[in-house]
Amino acid sequence: MKQPLEGIKVLDFSRVLAGPYCTMLLADMGAEVIKIERPESGDDTRHFGPFQNGESGYFMFLNRGKKSIEMNLKDPSDRESLMRLIKEADVIVENFRPGVMKSLGLDYESLKEVNKGLVYCSISGFGQYGPLTKRPAYDLVAQAMGGIASITGHPDNPPTRSGASIGDMSAALYAAYGVMVALFHRERTGIGQAIDVAMVDTIFSLLEHNVMRYTSEGVVPERIGSRHPISAPFDVYESKEGSIVIATANDPLFVKLCKVMNTEHLLDDERFKTDILRGENEAELKVFIEEWLSNYTADEAVELISEAGVPCSTILNIAEISESDHIKEREMLLEVEHPVAGKTRIPGNPVKLSATPVKVTSPSPALGEHNDMIKNLMKSE
Amino acid sequence: MKQPLEGIKVLDFSRVLAGPYCTMLLADMGAEVIKIERPESGDDTRHFGPFQNGESGYFMFLNRGKKSIEMNLKDPSDRESLMRLIKEADVIVENFRPGVMKSLGLDYESLKEVNKGLVYCSISGFGQYGPLTKRPAYDLVAQAMGGIASITGHPDNPPTRSGASIGDMSAALYAAYGVMVALFHRERTGIGQAIDVAMVDTIFSLLEHNVMRYTSEGVVPERIGSRHPISAPFDVYESKEGSIVIATANDPLFVKLCKVMNTEHLLDDERFKTDILRGENEAELKVFIEEWLSNYTADEAVELISEAGVPCSTILNIAEISESDHIKEREMLLEVEHPVAGKTRIPGNPVKLSATPVKVTSPSPALGEHNDMIKNLMKSE
Repeated sequence: MKQPLEGIKVLDFSRVLAGPYCTMLLADMGAEVIKIERPESGDDTRHFGPFQNGESGYFMFLNRGKKSIEMNLKDPSDRESLMRLIKEADVIVENFRPGVMKSLGLDYESLKEVNKGLVYCSISGFGQYGPLTKRPAYDLVAQAMGGIASITGHPDNPPTRSGASIGDMSAALYAAYGVMVALFHRERTGIGQAIDVAMVDTIFSLLEHNVMRYTSEGVVPERIGSRHPISAPFDVYESKEGSIVIATANDPLFVKLCKVMNTEHLLDDERFKTDILRGENEAELKVFIEEWLSNYTADEAVELISEAGVPCSTILNIAEISESDHIKEREMLLEVEHPVAGKTRIPGNPVKLSATPVKVTSPSPALGEHNDMIKNLMKSE
Repeated sequence: MKQPLEGIKVLDFSRVLAGPYCTMLLADMGAEVIKIERPESGDDTRHFGPFQNGESGYFMFLNRGKKSIEMNLKDPSDRESLMRLIKEADVIVENFRPGVMKSLGLDYESLKEVNKGLVYCSISGFGQYGPLTKRPAYDLVAQAMGGIASITGHPDNPPTRSGASIGDMSAALYAAYGVMVALFHRERTGIGQAIDVAMVDTIFSLLEHNVMRYTSEGVVPERIGSRHPISAPFDVYESKEGSIVIATANDPLFVKLCKVMNTEHLLDDERFKTDILRGENEAELKVFIEEWLSNYTADEAVELISEAGVPCSTILNIAEISESDHIKEREMLLEVEHPVAGKTRIPGNPVKLSATPVKVTSPSPALGEHNDMIKNLMKSE
């Protein structure tokens, strides 16, 4: 069966992370993604570590299945070729600082004149409009300003960035959903449109009920480590050997947990009668739990607690999750043969489609590997 | 202009966060989302805080613009009505533990017999197949197992959960992208399909280059607070009054930073010549930066550093970002009139579409508010 986005042509002006991850999500589904790169140096991430045989793992992961054309966006001859590509494109994705595409005459208002069905997606730190539109941003800035850093980490430590660039990644995800909504709409109406996604907005959107705590009750959520604001036991606990998480968000789960720990007397303890009381007396509850845990390794404890139906897990590092049976069976690491790097393992796509499963068929392109496309395009006219 | 998903009917069996956020993303774009709720009690989140006039803010935010029908999925008469709804549905979203929908005879294999174009999306902790499929999961478990907790937090502290439920939220986002891809494919081919999204997989996907550090170079990333693995200054710094983040990920930005701090002598300092060296000597560099910062408040410093073109920000708490001019101008908090709660502010949608902007036209439904739909459905036959 054909891939879902077969026939969809994406011109990708984006660099580094948020834009390239968005277009990777489109390429994974069968879209033809043509990466427009600066001559000679290309996307910055070609020069970022980690490296495998001199090839950037950062770049290989994000750009699998794409084509690469070198273009100087200010060169008249390159621009002539570019405009032919734009006329045939279905989607454009870019993540320059707002104003850059306009200064190049490549903003949506200009391009819709030559291609009225175009879906044009811009990703930036602060958006195409708004009081901070011109400010530079990196992921850390989006996490700090968007509110999530203020609630991540332990109470007696400074605010903390998530260990992954969730500002970029969430912007890419919202953008991919936006592009697909716009393509669906275009399919039914023929009408294209511009999409504007800001990293600060997407971080703010990830906050979920924390925003409602403020707008409904006037509470300003604070850092509470791994705990849950309204229930317990819900935290990291120490076993005889290694830490585990236990997530007990309601009374029935607490009953199950007490049964497996043989501490059913806790069910009659006034301090632990409800989610709220358990939250208030969490430190005392932790003593009972860790006393029981001291008899087991982390793996043994997780086995017992899971069997009882209570959500829990060991805390896996990147090597452990990467080598787990779960990731293997779910095909969340794909092996790709890269002409320079050799066999490479890159993250798969977590959306498992029954009729049109994602197939990653080619590795990331060499810089300018598809420059010939342009010559052929000119010949064919 | 019509909303992009006008005419798309979504039957929503999902509860709590991941599923309801996915269907909210569809409702925001004009889909008709019919929430199938357990009679009398409904979605668990109707009883979660925070509350405004007794209405759950948690529920109001996630379920704006949806309809609510009470159904007992085991009752023969309710099931007859349900099957009529299923025949007319375009999309089903559910987030029960794998196996539950099958035990109810409502799995994809059964339902595609009555509706071959159906797009059927399942969200779960560990997926519909795989070694851990039957295990219960909450967000904390997905964050711990998926690897992100191991790299979030300070080196001398335990692994940390992100302050928001990014396991649920990322699963919802990947699911929304998957549903849109499948709807686009169906539009062109008439073929429906099942979609399987697991929270552990989506957390693993958010790890971005951290996975490549392991697969390309064998490095196991560790907790480094807010710092960047390959550059500096990139961290939280203390000003005269309050903390700020500065994100300097390359040499040109470091030059700009030194100019604004009047510390150009640092550019000739061997310890700070390259990203890697600055990373290695980050503690010494921090002394110079905080010495300069001690002359300014956080706001003053951010103004000066931003002007110089270096990404930086104060660290906003949930109240500060919610009340910011940025969120106001970007319409990231919407005012909705709820019949019980009154005026309520709920998070907006970060995808800004030029031709078909998101309009949130109705508040979350009362439990069973649309039960009459069923009667009318029966009459019309």
